Amino acid sequence: MRVVFQQELREVQNRLVEIAELVETAIQQATAAFGTSDVTLAEKVLDGGEEVERLAGELDELTVDILARQQPVASDLRLMVGALRMSSSLERMADLAQHIAQLSRYRYPESAIPEGLRKTFSKMGAIDVLMASKLVELLRDQDEKLIGEIRDLDDGLDKLHVKVFEKVLSEKVQVDGPTGVVDATLASRYHERFGDHAVAITKQVNFFLSGELD
Amino acid sequence: MRVVFQQELREVQNRLVEIAELVETAIQQATAAFGTSDVTLAEKVLDGGEEVERLAGELDELTVDILARQQPVASDLRLMVGALRMSSSLERMADLAQHIAQLSRYRYPESAIPEGLRKTFSKMGAIDVLMASKLVELLRDQDEKLIGEIRDLDDGLDKLHVKVFEKVLSEKVQVDGPTGVVDATLASRYHERFGDHAVAITKQVNFFLSGELD
Repeated sequence: MRVVFQQELREVQNRLVEIAELVETAIQQATAAFGTSDVTLAEKVLDGGEEVERLAGELDELTVDILARQQPVASDLRLMVGALRMSSSLERMADLAQHIAQLSRYRYPESAIPEGLRKTFSKMGAIDVLMASKLVELLRDQDEKLIGEIRDLDDGLDKLHVKVFEKVLSEKVQVDGPTGVVDATLASRYHERFGDHAVAITKQVNFFLSGELD
Repeated sequence: MRVVFQQELREVQNRLVEIAELVETAIQQATAAFGTSDVTLAEKVLDGGEEVERLAGELDELTVDILARQQPVASDLRLMVGALRMSSSLERMADLAQHIAQLSRYRYPESAIPEGLRKTFSKMGAIDVLMASKLVELLRDQDEKLIGEIRDLDDGLDKLHVKVFEKVLSEKVQVDGPTGVVDATLASRYHERFGDHAVAITKQVNFFLSGELD
Protein backbone atom coordinates (compact mmCIF):
# COMPACT_ATOMS: atom_id res chain seq x y z
CA MET A 1 0.00 0.00 0.00
CA ARG A 2 2.86 2.33 0.83
CA VAL A 3 4.25 1.93 -2.69
CA VAL A 4 0.84 2.61 -4.20
CA PHE A 5 0.55 5.74 -2.08
CA GLN A 6 3.95 6.94 -3.27
CA GLN A 7 2.82 6.44 -6.85
CA GLU A 8 -0.35 8.37 -6.17
CA LEU A 9 1.57 11.20 -4.55
CA ARG A 10 3.71 11.38 -7.67
CA GLU A 11 0.56 11.51 -9.77
CA VAL A 12 -0.79 14.40 -7.65
CA GLN A 13 2.53 16.19 -8.05
CA ASN A 14 2.56 15.65 -11.83
CA ARG A 15 -0.90 17.08 -12.11
CA LEU A 16 0.00 20.13 -10.03
CA VAL A 17 2.96 20.72 -12.35
CA GLU A 18 0.71 20.30 -15.40
CA ILE A 19 -1.78 22.88 -14.09
CA ALA A 20 1.02 25.25 -13.07
CA GLU A 21 2.41 25.03 -16.62
CA LEU A 22 -0.97 26.06 -18.01
CA VAL A 23 -1.05 28.96 -15.55
CA GLU A 24 2.43 29.96 -16.71
CA THR A 25 1.29 30.01 -20.35
CA ALA A 26 -1.87 31.90 -19.40
CA ILE A 27 -0.02 34.67 -17.56
CA GLN A 28 2.58 34.90 -20.35
CA GLN A 29 -0.14 35.37 -22.94
CA ALA A 30 -2.29 37.59 -20.70
CA THR A 31 0.48 40.04 -19.90
CA ALA A 32 1.59 40.06 -23.56
CA ALA A 33 -1.99 40.71 -24.67
CA PHE A 34 -2.33 43.42 -22.02
CA GLY A 35 0.92 45.09 -23.07
CA THR A 36 0.28 45.04 -26.81
CA SER A 37 -3.56 45.15 -26.93
CA ASP A 38 -3.49 41.84 -28.80
CA VAL A 39 -7.13 40.81 -28.65
CA THR A 40 -6.56 37.46 -30.40
CA LEU A 41 -4.06 36.47 -27.73
CA ALA A 42 -6.43 37.74 -25.02
CA GLU A 43 -9.15 35.47 -26.36
CA LYS A 44 -6.78 32.53 -26.30
CA VAL A 45 -6.28 33.10 -22.57
CA LEU A 46 -10.03 33.34 -22.02
CA ASP A 47 -10.60 30.10 -23.96
CA GLY A 48 -7.91 28.33 -21.93
CA GLY A 49 -9.57 29.01 -18.58
CA GLU A 50 -11.91 26.05 -18.79
CA GLU A 51 -9.03 23.62 -19.17
CA VAL A 52 -7.44 24.75 -15.89
CA GLU A 53 -10.79 24.57 -14.13
CA ARG A 54 -11.38 21.05 -15.44
CA LEU A 55 -7.90 19.83 -14.48
CA ALA A 56 -8.10 21.42 -11.02
CA GLY A 57 -11.51 19.80 -10.50
CA GLU A 58 -10.13 16.42 -11.56
CA LEU A 59 -7.15 16.82 -9.26
CA ASP A 60 -9.48 17.58 -6.36
CA GLU A 61 -11.47 14.45 -7.17
CA LEU A 62 -8.28 12.39 -7.25
CA THR A 63 -7.10 13.86 -3.95
CA VAL A 64 -10.37 13.14 -2.20
CA ASP A 65 -10.29 9.66 -3.70
CA ILE A 66 -6.78 9.04 -2.36
CA LEU A 67 -7.83 10.32 1.06
CA ALA A 68 -10.71 7.84 1.04
CA ARG A 69 -8.72 4.83 -0.16
CA GLN A 70 -5.34 5.35 1.47
CA GLN A 71 -6.48 7.03 4.67
CA PRO A 72 -3.18 8.80 5.12
CA VAL A 73 -2.25 10.25 8.50
CA ALA A 74 0.25 12.79 9.78
CA SER A 75 2.43 14.39 7.11
CA ASP A 76 0.90 12.39 4.25
CA LEU A 77 -2.54 13.65 5.21
CA ARG A 78 -1.27 17.22 5.28
CA LEU A 79 0.25 16.69 1.87
CA MET A 80 -3.17 15.79 0.50
CA VAL A 81 -4.83 18.78 2.18
CA GLY A 82 -1.99 20.93 0.82
CA ALA A 83 -2.66 19.61 -2.68
CA LEU A 84 -6.29 20.74 -2.40
CA ARG A 85 -5.14 24.20 -1.34
CA MET A 86 -2.56 24.45 -4.10
CA SER A 87 -5.03 23.45 -6.79
CA SER A 88 -7.39 26.13 -5.53
CA SER A 89 -4.61 28.76 -5.66
CA LEU A 90 -3.59 27.69 -9.17
CA GLU A 91 -7.20 27.99 -10.29
CA ARG A 92 -7.38 31.53 -8.90
CA MET A 93 -4.12 32.42 -10.66
CA ALA A 94 -5.64 31.29 -13.97
CA ASP A 95 -8.74 33.40 -13.19
CA LEU A 96 -6.54 36.44 -12.58
CA ALA A 97 -4.66 35.87 -15.85
CA GLN A 98 -8.06 35.83 -17.53
CA HIS A 99 -9.06 39.07 -15.82
CA ILE A 100 -5.86 40.72 -17.10
CA ALA A 101 -6.51 39.44 -20.63
CA GLN A 102 -10.09 40.66 -20.44
CA LEU A 103 -9.01 44.22 -19.63
CA SER A 104 -7.12 44.45 -22.92
CA ARG A 105 -10.12 43.08 -24.79
CA TYR A 106 -12.54 45.56 -23.22
CA ARG A 107 -10.48 48.55 -24.39
CA TYR A 108 -9.49 47.24 -27.80
CA PRO A 109 -8.36 48.88 -30.08
CA GLU A 110 -7.29 51.35 -27.38
CA SER A 111 -4.64 50.27 -24.91
CA ALA A 112 -5.81 49.40 -21.44
CA ILE A 113 -2.56 50.73 -20.03
CA PRO A 114 -2.39 54.48 -19.49
CA GLU A 115 0.70 56.21 -20.90
CA GLY A 116 3.35 56.63 -18.24
CA LEU A 117 2.36 53.37 -16.57
CA ARG A 118 3.44 51.07 -19.40
CA LYS A 119 6.90 50.47 -17.96
CA THR A 120 5.53 49.75 -14.50
CA PHE A 121 2.98 47.26 -15.83
CA SER A 122 5.56 45.70 -18.11
CA LYS A 123 7.66 45.05 -14.98
CA MET A 124 4.69 43.69 -13.03
CA GLY A 125 3.82 41.39 -15.92
CA ALA A 126 7.41 40.17 -16.20
CA ILE A 127 7.51 39.43 -12.47
CA ASP A 128 4.23 37.50 -12.61
CA VAL A 129 5.53 35.42 -15.52
CA LEU A 130 8.81 34.75 -13.72
CA MET A 131 6.97 33.75 -10.53
CA ALA A 132 4.79 31.33 -12.49
CA SER A 133 7.83 29.81 -14.15
CA LYS A 134 9.65 29.41 -10.82
CA LEU A 135 6.49 27.89 -9.37
CA VAL A 136 6.45 25.20 -12.05
CA GLU A 137 10.08 24.47 -11.24
CA LEU A 138 9.39 24.43 -7.49
CA LEU A 139 6.49 22.01 -7.85
CA ARG A 140 8.53 19.77 -10.16
CA ASP A 141 11.93 19.76 -8.47
CA GLN A 142 11.14 20.91 -4.92
CA ASP A 143 14.25 23.02 -4.81
CA GLU A 144 13.93 24.95 -1.55
CA LYS A 145 15.87 28.01 -2.73
CA LEU A 146 13.07 28.79 -5.20
CA ILE A 147 10.75 29.53 -2.27
CA GLY A 148 12.86 32.52 -1.23
CA GLU A 149 13.20 33.65 -4.83
CA ILE A 150 9.43 33.61 -5.37
CA ARG A 151 8.87 35.57 -2.16
CA ASP A 152 11.47 38.16 -3.14
CA LEU A 153 9.72 38.57 -6.48
CA ASP A 154 6.45 39.09 -4.63
CA ASP A 155 8.02 41.85 -2.52
CA GLY A 156 9.00 43.57 -5.77
CA LEU A 157 5.46 43.18 -7.03
CA ASP A 158 3.99 44.75 -3.91
CA LYS A 159 6.28 47.75 -4.32
CA LEU A 160 5.19 48.20 -7.94
CA HIS A 161 1.54 47.90 -6.85
CA VAL A 162 2.03 50.82 -4.46
CA LYS A 163 3.88 52.72 -7.20
CA VAL A 164 0.95 52.38 -9.60
CA PHE A 165 -1.32 54.12 -7.09
CA GLU A 166 1.26 56.76 -6.30
CA LYS A 167 1.62 57.54 -9.99
CA VAL A 168 -2.11 57.57 -10.65
CA LEU A 169 -2.87 59.71 -7.60
CA SER A 170 -0.01 62.14 -8.15
CA GLU A 171 -1.77 63.03 -11.42
CA LYS A 172 1.69 63.34 -12.95
CA VAL A 173 0.91 60.40 -15.16
CA GLN A 174 -1.39 61.20 -18.02
CA VAL A 175 -4.31 58.86 -17.43
CA ASP A 176 -6.93 59.04 -20.10
CA GLY A 177 -9.92 60.01 -17.94
CA PRO A 178 -11.56 57.67 -15.45
CA THR A 179 -11.26 54.67 -17.79
CA GLY A 180 -7.49 54.72 -17.51
CA VAL A 181 -7.67 54.99 -13.72
CA VAL A 182 -10.17 52.11 -13.45
CA ASP A 183 -8.05 49.91 -15.72
CA ALA A 184 -4.81 50.71 -13.94
CA THR A 185 -6.40 50.06 -10.54
CA LEU A 186 -7.88 46.71 -11.53
CA ALA A 187 -4.83 45.57 -13.50
CA SER A 188 -2.50 46.39 -10.63
CA ARG A 189 -4.72 44.54 -8.18
CA TYR A 190 -4.90 41.46 -10.45
CA HIS A 191 -1.12 41.38 -10.89
CA GLU A 192 -0.60 41.72 -7.15
CA ARG A 193 -3.10 38.99 -6.22
CA PHE A 194 -1.46 36.64 -8.73
CA GLY A 195 1.75 36.98 -6.72
CA ASP A 196 -0.08 36.43 -3.42
CA HIS A 197 -1.36 33.08 -4.61
CA ALA A 198 2.12 32.06 -5.78
CA VAL A 199 3.38 32.82 -2.26
CA ALA A 200 0.50 30.83 -0.75
CA ILE A 201 1.66 27.83 -2.79
CA THR A 202 5.27 28.26 -1.61
CA LYS A 203 3.94 28.02 1.96
CA GLN A 204 2.41 24.63 1.22
CA VAL A 205 5.58 23.39 -0.47
CA ASN A 206 7.67 24.72 2.40
CA PHE A 207 5.49 22.76 4.78
CA PHE A 208 6.18 19.54 2.86
CA LEU A 209 9.89 20.21 2.76
CA SER A 210 10.49 21.45 6.28
CA GLY A 211 7.42 20.29 8.17
CA GLU A 212 6.78 23.86 9.23
CA LEU A 213 4.11 26.30 8.20
CA ASP A 214 5.53 29.78 8.06
CA MET B 1 -17.03 5.86 16.74
CA ARG B 2 -19.97 6.98 14.63
CA VAL B 3 -21.38 8.93 17.56
CA VAL B 4 -17.99 10.54 18.19
CA PHE B 5 -17.80 11.52 14.53
CA GLN B 6 -21.27 13.07 14.70
CA GLN B 7 -20.17 15.09 17.71
CA GLU B 8 -17.09 16.22 15.88
CA LEU B 9 -19.11 17.22 12.83
CA ARG B 10 -21.29 19.31 15.11
CA GLU B 11 -18.18 20.92 16.54
CA VAL B 12 -16.93 21.78 13.04
CA GLN B 13 -20.32 23.24 12.21
CA ASN B 14 -20.41 25.31 15.41
CA ARG B 15 -17.01 26.71 14.64
CA LEU B 16 -18.01 27.62 11.07
CA VAL B 17 -21.03 29.46 12.50
CA GLU B 18 -18.81 31.23 15.01
CA ILE B 19 -16.42 32.43 12.29
CA ALA B 20 -19.31 33.43 10.01
CA GLU B 21 -20.74 35.53 12.87
CA LEU B 22 -17.43 37.37 13.18
CA VAL B 23 -17.45 37.94 9.42
CA GLU B 24 -20.98 39.30 9.70
CA THR B 25 -19.90 41.76 12.38
CA ALA B 26 -16.82 42.71 10.36
CA ILE B 27 -18.76 43.51 7.19
CA GLN B 28 -21.41 45.40 9.18
CA GLN B 29 -18.75 47.56 10.78
CA ALA B 30 -16.67 47.86 7.60
CA THR B 31 -19.53 49.06 5.42
CA ALA B 32 -20.71 51.43 8.18
CA ALA B 33 -17.17 52.81 8.51
CA PHE B 34 -16.90 53.13 4.74
CA GLY B 35 -20.23 54.93 4.50
CA THR B 36 -19.64 57.37 7.33
CA SER B 37 -15.82 57.68 7.28
CA ASP B 38 -15.78 56.43 10.86
CA VAL B 39 -12.11 55.72 11.37
CA THR B 40 -12.55 54.32 14.89
CA LEU B 41 -14.96 51.73 13.58
CA ALA B 42 -12.60 50.99 10.66
CA GLU B 43 -9.81 50.29 13.12
CA LYS B 44 -12.06 47.93 15.06
CA VAL B 45 -12.51 45.89 11.87
CA LEU B 46 -8.77 45.86 11.25
CA ASP B 47 -8.09 44.72 14.81
CA GLY B 48 -10.67 41.94 14.51
CA GLY B 49 -8.97 40.32 11.51
CA GLU B 50 -6.51 38.32 13.57
CA GLU B 51 -9.29 36.63 15.51
CA VAL B 52 -10.89 35.26 12.31
CA GLU B 53 -7.51 34.11 11.05
CA ARG B 54 -6.78 32.36 14.34
CA LEU B 55 -10.18 30.65 14.49
CA ALA B 56 -10.00 29.58 10.84
CA GLY B 57 -6.52 28.16 11.44
CA GLU B 58 -7.76 26.25 14.49
CA LEU B 59 -10.73 24.91 12.55
CA ASP B 60 -8.40 23.67 9.81
CA GLU B 61 -6.28 21.94 12.44
CA LEU B 62 -9.37 20.30 13.91
CA THR B 63 -10.57 19.19 10.48
CA VAL B 64 -7.23 17.62 9.58
CA ASP B 65 -7.18 16.00 13.01
CA ILE B 66 -10.65 14.50 12.47
CA LEU B 67 -9.59 13.26 9.02
CA ALA B 68 -6.61 11.53 10.61
CA ARG B 69 -8.49 9.97 13.53
CA GLN B 70 -11.86 9.15 12.01
CA GLN B 71 -10.73 8.37 8.47
CA PRO B 72 -14.10 9.24 7.03
CA VAL B 73 -15.04 8.10 3.55
CA ALA B 74 -17.63 9.07 0.95
CA SER B 75 -19.90 11.92 1.94
CA ASP B 76 -18.34 12.35 5.40
CA LEU B 77 -14.95 12.83 3.79
CA ARG B 78 -16.38 15.41 1.41
CA LEU B 79 -17.93 17.18 4.35
CA MET B 80 -14.49 17.56 5.93
CA VAL B 81 -12.95 18.78 2.68
CA GLY B 82 -15.88 21.17 2.33
CA ALA B 83 -15.21 22.51 5.83
CA LEU B 84 -11.64 23.34 4.81
CA ARG B 85 -12.93 25.20 1.77
CA MET B 86 -15.57 27.08 3.74
CA SER B 87 -13.09 28.21 6.38
CA SER B 88 -10.84 29.50 3.61
CA SER B 89 -13.73 31.45 2.04
CA LEU B 90 -14.75 32.90 5.40
CA GLU B 91 -11.17 34.01 5.99
CA ARG B 92 -11.14 35.78 2.59
CA MET B 93 -14.46 37.46 3.41
CA ALA B 94 -12.95 38.84 6.61
CA ASP B 95 -9.94 40.06 4.57
CA LEU B 96 -12.25 41.84 2.16
CA ALA B 97 -14.16 43.49 5.03
CA GLN B 98 -10.77 44.71 6.26
CA HIS B 99 -9.90 46.07 2.83
CA ILE B 100 -13.20 48.01 2.76
CA ALA B 101 -12.52 49.38 6.24
CA GLN B 102 -9.01 50.34 5.25
CA LEU B 103 -10.22 52.43 2.32
CA SER B 104 -12.18 54.68 4.67
CA ARG B 105 -9.14 55.00 6.92
CA TYR B 106 -6.81 55.97 4.06
CA ARG B 107 -9.02 58.88 3.03
CA TYR B 108 -10.00 60.11 6.48
CA PRO B 109 -11.23 62.79 7.13
CA GLU B 110 -12.38 62.81 3.51
CA SER B 111 -14.95 60.29 2.39
CA ALA B 112 -13.67 57.39 0.32
CA ILE B 113 -16.95 57.34 -1.56
CA PRO B 114 -17.29 59.78 -4.44
CA GLU B 115 -20.48 61.90 -4.48
CA GLY B 116 -23.09 60.32 -6.69
CA LEU B 117 -21.95 56.82 -5.82
CA ARG B 118 -22.98 56.91 -2.16
CA LYS B 119 -26.37 55.37 -2.79
CA THR B 120 -24.91 52.60 -4.95
CA PHE B 121 -22.29 51.73 -2.34
CA SER B 122 -24.81 51.93 0.43
CA LYS B 123 -26.86 49.29 -1.45
CA MET B 124 -23.80 47.12 -2.08
CA GLY B 125 -22.87 47.31 1.60
CA ALA B 126 -26.40 46.44 2.68
CA ILE B 127 -26.41 43.41 0.36
CA ASP B 128 -23.05 42.20 1.68
CA VAL B 129 -24.31 42.50 5.24
CA LEU B 130 -27.52 40.66 4.40
CA MET B 131 -25.60 37.91 2.62
CA ALA B 132 -23.34 37.46 5.64
CA SER B 133 -26.33 37.26 7.95
CA LYS B 134 -28.07 34.69 5.75
CA LEU B 135 -24.83 32.74 5.58
CA VAL B 136 -24.72 32.49 9.38
CA GLU B 137 -28.30 31.25 9.30
CA LEU B 138 -27.56 28.77 6.51
CA LEU B 139 -24.54 27.32 8.30
CA ARG B 140 -26.51 27.07 11.55
CA ASP B 141 -29.89 25.80 10.35
CA GLN B 142 -29.09 24.35 6.91
CA ASP B 143 -32.30 25.73 5.49
CA GLU B 144 -32.00 25.08 1.76
CA LYS B 145 -34.11 28.06 0.70
CA LEU B 146 -31.38 30.40 1.98
CA ILE B 147 -29.05 29.13 -0.76
CA GLY B 148 -31.26 30.60 -3.48
CA GLU B 149 -31.71 33.80 -1.48
CA ILE B 150 -27.96 34.30 -1.12
CA ARG B 151 -27.44 33.69 -4.84
CA ASP B 152 -30.17 36.16 -5.77
CA LEU B 153 -28.49 38.74 -3.55
CA ASP B 154 -25.21 38.05 -5.34
CA ASP B 155 -26.87 38.68 -8.72
CA GLY B 156 -27.99 42.06 -7.40
CA LEU B 157 -24.45 42.75 -6.23
CA ASP B 158 -23.00 41.95 -9.65
CA LYS B 159 -25.43 44.38 -11.28
CA LEU B 160 -24.42 47.14 -8.87
CA HIS B 161 -20.74 46.35 -9.54
CA VAL B 162 -21.32 46.96 -13.26
CA LYS B 163 -23.29 50.11 -12.41
CA VAL B 164 -20.38 51.57 -10.44
CA PHE B 165 -18.15 51.31 -13.50
CA GLU B 166 -20.83 52.68 -15.80
CA LYS B 167 -21.28 55.67 -13.53
CA VAL B 168 -17.56 56.28 -13.11
CA LEU B 169 -16.84 55.93 -16.82
CA SER B 170 -19.81 58.01 -17.94
CA GLU B 171 -18.15 60.89 -16.11
CA LYS B 172 -21.61 61.99 -15.11
CA VAL B 173 -20.76 61.25 -11.53
CA GLN B 174 -18.55 63.84 -9.92
CA VAL B 175 -15.52 61.81 -8.88
CA ASP B 176 -12.95 63.81 -7.04
CA GLY B 177 -9.98 63.24 -9.36
CA PRO B 178 -8.20 59.91 -9.73
CA THR B 179 -8.41 59.19 -5.98
CA GLY B 180 -12.18 58.88 -6.17
CA VAL B 181 -11.94 56.58 -9.19
CA VAL B 182 -9.32 54.35 -7.55
CA ASP B 183 -11.38 54.11 -4.36
CA ALA B 184 -14.63 53.40 -6.17
CA THR B 185 -12.96 50.73 -8.33
CA LEU B 186 -11.34 48.94 -5.40
CA ALA B 187 -14.37 49.26 -3.12
CA SER B 188 -16.69 47.88 -5.77
CA ARG B 189 -14.36 44.98 -6.45
CA TYR B 190 -14.09 44.16 -2.72
CA HIS B 191 -17.86 44.23 -2.26
CA GLU B 192 -18.34 41.99 -5.28
CA ARG B 193 -15.70 39.44 -4.25
CA PHE B 194 -17.28 39.25 -0.78
CA GLY B 195 -20.47 38.06 -2.47
CA ASP B 196 -18.57 35.54 -4.63
CA HIS B 197 -17.17 33.87 -1.53
CA ALA B 198 -20.61 33.71 0.08
CA VAL B 199 -21.85 31.93 -3.05
CA ALA B 200 -18.87 29.55 -2.93
CA ILE B 201 -19.92 28.59 0.59
CA THR B 202 -23.53 27.98 -0.50
CA LYS B 203 -22.13 25.50 -3.06
CA GLN B 204 -20.46 23.51 -0.30
CA VAL B 205 -23.60 23.55 1.84
CA ASN B 206 -25.69 22.57 -1.16
CA PHE B 207 -23.41 19.62 -1.69
CA PHE B 208 -23.97 18.44 1.88
CA LEU B 209 -27.72 18.84 1.59
CA SER B 210 -28.31 17.45 -1.88
CA GLY B 211 -25.16 15.45 -2.59
CA GLU B 212 -24.66 17.48 -5.75
CA LEU B 213 -22.11 20.10 -6.61
CA ASP B 214 -23.67 22.75 -8.78
